[in-house]
Amino acid sequence: MKKDFSSSSLQSPPTKSIKIKRSDSPKYSVMAFQGKKLINNPNDVVTEFIEGLVETYPGLQYLDGFPEVKVVIRADASGTTYDKVAVISGGGSGHEPAHAGYVGEGMLTAAICGDVFASPSVDSILAGIRAVTGPMGCLLIVKNYTGDRLNFGLAAEQARSEGYKIETVIVGDDCALPPPRGIAGRRGLAGTVLVHKVAGAAAAAGLSLADVASEAQRASEMVGTMGVALSVCTLPGQVTSDRLGPGKMELGLGIHGEAGAAVADLQPVDVVVSHVLNQILSLETNYVPITRGNRVVLMINGLGATPVMELMIAAGKTVPKLQLEFGLAVERVYTGSFMTSLDMAGFSISIMKADQTLLQRLDAPTKAPHWPVGSAGNRPPAKIPVPLPSSRSTKSEESLSRPLQLSEQGHILEAAIEAAVNAVIGMRDSLNDWDSKVGDGDCGSTMYRGATAILDDMKKYYPLNDAAETVNEIGSSVRRAMGGTSGVLYNIFCKAAYAKLKANSDSAVTAKQWAEALEAAIAAVSKYGGASAGYRTLLDALIPASAVLKERLTAGDDSSTAFLLSSEAASAGAESTKDMPAQAGRSSYVSAAILATVPDPGAMAAAAWYRAAALAVKAKYEKA
Amino acid sequence: MKKDFSSSSLQSPPTKSIKIKRSDSPKYSVMAFQGKKLINNPNDVVTEFIEGLVETYPGLQYLDGFPEVKVVIRADASGTTYDKVAVISGGGSGHEPAHAGYVGEGMLTAAICGDVFASPSVDSILAGIRAVTGPMGCLLIVKNYTGDRLNFGLAAEQARSEGYKIETVIVGDDCALPPPRGIAGRRGLAGTVLVHKVAGAAAAAGLSLADVASEAQRASEMVGTMGVALSVCTLPGQVTSDRLGPGKMELGLGIHGEAGAAVADLQPVDVVVSHVLNQILSLETNYVPITRGNRVVLMINGLGATPVMELMIAAGKTVPKLQLEFGLAVERVYTGSFMTSLDMAGFSISIMKADQTLLQRLDAPTKAPHWPVGSAGNRPPAKIPVPLPSSRSTKSEESLSRPLQLSEQGHILEAAIEAAVNAVIGMRDSLNDWDSKVGDGDCGSTMYRGATAILDDMKKYYPLNDAAETVNEIGSSVRRAMGGTSGVLYNIFCKAAYAKLKANSDSAVTAKQWAEALEAAIAAVSKYGGASAGYRTLLDALIPASAVLKERLTAGDDSSTAFLLSSEAASAGAESTKDMPAQAGRSSYVSAAILATVPDPGAMAAAAWYRAAALAVKAKYEKA
Repeated sequence: MKKDFSSSSLQSPPTKSIKIKRSDSPKYSVMAFQGKKLINNPNDVVTEFIEGLVETYPGLQYLDGFPEVKVVIRADASGTTYDKVAVISGGGSGHEPAHAGYVGEGMLTAAICGDVFASPSVDSILAGIRAVTGPMGCLLIVKNYTGDRLNFGLAAEQARSEGYKIETVIVGDDCALPPPRGIAGRRGLAGTVLVHKVAGAAAAAGLSLADVASEAQRASEMVGTMGVALSVCTLPGQVTSDRLGPGKMELGLGIHGEAGAAVADLQPVDVVVSHVLNQILSLETNYVPITRGNRVVLMINGLGATPVMELMIAAGKTVPKLQLEFGLAVERVYTGSFMTSLDMAGFSISIMKADQTLLQRLDAPTKAPHWPVGSAGNRPPAKIPVPLPSSRSTKSEESLSRPLQLSEQGHILEAAIEAAVNAVIGMRDSLNDWDSKVGDGDCGSTMYRGATAILDDMKKYYPLNDAAETVNEIGSSVRRAMGGTSGVLYNIFCKAAYAKLKANSDSAVTAKQWAEALEAAIAAVSKYGGASAGYRTLLDALIPASAVLKERLTAGDDSSTAFLLSSEAASAGAESTKDMPAQAGRSSYVSAAILATVPDPGAMAAAAWYRAAALAVKAKYEKA
Repeated sequence: MKKDFSSSSLQSPPTKSIKIKRSDSPKYSVMAFQGKKLINNPNDVVTEFIEGLVETYPGLQYLDGFPEVKVVIRADASGTTYDKVAVISGGGSGHEPAHAGYVGEGMLTAAICGDVFASPSVDSILAGIRAVTGPMGCLLIVKNYTGDRLNFGLAAEQARSEGYKIETVIVGDDCALPPPRGIAGRRGLAGTVLVHKVAGAAAAAGLSLADVASEAQRASEMVGTMGVALSVCTLPGQVTSDRLGPGKMELGLGIHGEAGAAVADLQPVDVVVSHVLNQILSLETNYVPITRGNRVVLMINGLGATPVMELMIAAGKTVPKLQLEFGLAVERVYTGSFMTSLDMAGFSISIMKADQTLLQRLDAPTKAPHWPVGSAGNRPPAKIPVPLPSSRSTKSEESLSRPLQLSEQGHILEAAIEAAVNAVIGMRDSLNDWDSKVGDGDCGSTMYRGATAILDDMKKYYPLNDAAETVNEIGSSVRRAMGGTSGVLYNIFCKAAYAKLKANSDSAVTAKQWAEALEAAIAAVSKYGGASAGYRTLLDALIPASAVLKERLTAGDDSSTAFLLSSEAASAGAESTKDMPAQAGRSSYVSAAILATVPDPGAMAAAAWYRAAALAVKAKYEKA
């Protein structure tokens, strides 16, 4: 069978086409590893899967016939009382969640599980039919594989001879190969899941067996599927084959580890999607009766080991292609791993022609646990504008420029800030030196960058008469200039202080309000930074300072004295970090002996700017 | 940090324990391949993921701020009008479906997506907060990683300063490592998804921000998680590392490709599950406040490339262990891929202590597309008996033994069967010979087995006075003796004929009824076998026979003459298979020149038994 990959289709082939190598030309490297799987005895995978399934989903039960009979049924459907058409599917296992994951009201009534990639026995199919079929009869949905056709067929005939009403629909949705000449026919692939849903919804709506079968038959004729894989699946207990080799992909594969129609170099998923769509919608094979202007639904189906991210990327690329290049209206998109091939990496694309009736069936509610949620209904615009900051926070022109005239508090604030940043600037080399012993040696330089930025920005536009806004702007200067964890933490410090000051005061800030702002700022840094007292961080300077400030103010000290006393506590706290073990980052790899000779540079910097500010405030008050 | 893997727990360690190798001992082979992924530009994976996500789920939208702002929000929630507490989560991408797949009524209001394994920017977190937060405020749920803590923290402070009410809950559910001494703390893992659900349900119930935050905080303190991996994840565009090597697994890993706590030889999943449960429930670390008799929920979380089959097997093993070995009541089981690590193979187990309130939150409805369906509610017994064949079909003692006295029809039937099977027995070598040229050479032997079985069984118990039941028993004899496709097809043939005879007649069967039964039998073989006229199968003998039989009976021929004439059509049809191309199986590889010298052995056998039966019937009628 010669495969022609330049087949015509609704659309000309993609400009960047895929170089094809026939998959039967044996020019790829073969490596073999024992396939890694988290399983027990490879012979027990199907029964153990079913045990886990019913533990997970209380709405499912199984027939007590292991290991021969492996049948999952709805817990609420019993043949003797079941008043709807039963819908049964199944086949070899290894396609999980198919088929057992689709058992539930509104979809399958039972699923018959064979061993991995092996058709279930006639007896187990019969057991399933007997368990759930009532007077309305039973529809068997069978994927087109010889073993399944024969075993389900024999079971159907046997059940009929027992008096059951049975219909069978055989699904062959494969579009990868040219129209077959013989018995094999087109393989049943992921499109079968859509047929399950249509049939299950029709049955739930109370339709007769003939009508359910006719809707399922019609759905099966409307859907086409083709797959692409990056890896070959490994059967439980078997050796892994990389018949593909690095950098290769396989096109037009089945779901039983059989070789695909062709091997090609891996391409961007855009190119892969174009190729697959051209095959499915080919006018030459005419596999699906879909033409320009039609409405369709799309299924992007992971083959077992494909991350959701990649499936969604494929979905995001397929939809606009179908719309723009093929002129189709995409009404629904189902993206997930629905009909897998053990641990195969890759996906298949299914396209089904849709009308209103079919969309209703697909949208109808179901309790089947693995039918996708949230794909129903029509789509609003997907993209909305990024909201601007709310007007509450928009700053007036006035507030974002340096005032022409400073208030008394504005003067004091300016002096405190200036003293604080100059203290940090002056410590650059000491900070770097300490940090080189316990960290990455750039603490001084980082703090220096922040300090000079504050100095520059303050001259330009800090609204110094508004203490809260000024603190906020300090945070912004720091964020722009400092970077790294310390920049974020100081920004959090300022934002938290700002929010507290803003909530508490109008423009003049009392010492008590400053103390509360300091407390809030420390709490925020501790929470988001993850450190507490004793962790050898800047908090070991600021926490004692905050405590003493609060204590002195409560005791009745005047504000500048309280501030000064608290700054002594900050310095003492910073010095005390020498005795603390390191808790994070590089310092945790440094020996205790070395740590004991060096204080935490972050704590020393914090103590320095705090003390400098306190001294400046004291000086201002004394001058006043 | 020395890791003690023999840690005490609620239960003694499993008898078959796991040999641990520290993961930092570099004694494993390293191989490098370019990671295979179905993506486009590796830098675009997150934005393209989001585009596919909103194509798939019409209930989701995103903010138009790519590539900086990557925020997915509920299509029906807008900050200005939103009257519930907004629940926002997010973090680095690569954990799909987390976090965007959990956006929807009853769970998250927005998800903030960073680049792969990179914390989102403060600006994009702020954009998300502004987009969905109304007067009730906003809860941020943050996984415990430094970058996320800092960026979400800063965004929270900034949003507060803009007037929003914001609370933050930081989740650290990792149980793999001993209690940390420092800032890093326990990592946030899959347990975070359960916290999302609890918070989302509390918010949907109309609770205040403080109450939603308090429920989320409590949930975060009730859950523990540990993972095991078979492979290392590969970042988009990067080279694949197999730092594990064949036959190894990694225990206690994170979800960002960081090395796990330990490497060990791969073990059966039973053993792996026991080890992980002992770690999570360890009394030494005391990470989760769970003790014997407690109620818990379980999450088995795939890490990105783990097939559903393996996840379900793990679930099926974990539940009884928790119940029997740890004395816990397992109230809910969530099995799926919820918080992944790109394409990593493996799973994590999360266990959360549950009370009635928490179960209500977990069971509450949600439209979030990736919250699992069908896990809610209490469980009925999971296993039910295999149903017996319905009484309709139970055969009476009488019908399943050879009658003492044969009716006239019984005599004729016996003669026809005997003649038919003897014809097949006599053709064994010819059939094998033809088959050796176009097939696998066993057609004669297979048919011989079926024929002798019929002969034996007929003498023992065929109820020859009941033609329908006798045909049914022929099918059963064939099924037992023949095997292979031909055995199934002949069984289907007999079952379909039986069902038709049974429906049409009581005991005496008219020629017209036989003709209809033949037609039904041929239709069933054609449907389930997949062949039609001209496919070079037994149908090429039987289809002309059926046509002639019907035609002659309609023309008014007596039944034995019509039967005989139709048998000539069968022989002619079988001979004509020489001119037919092969359509399936081995024959399709045989050249047309060879095929032309050999008739289809299956068709020849069918013609032979049919003609022999017809001759026997004719002889009986003539004698009578």
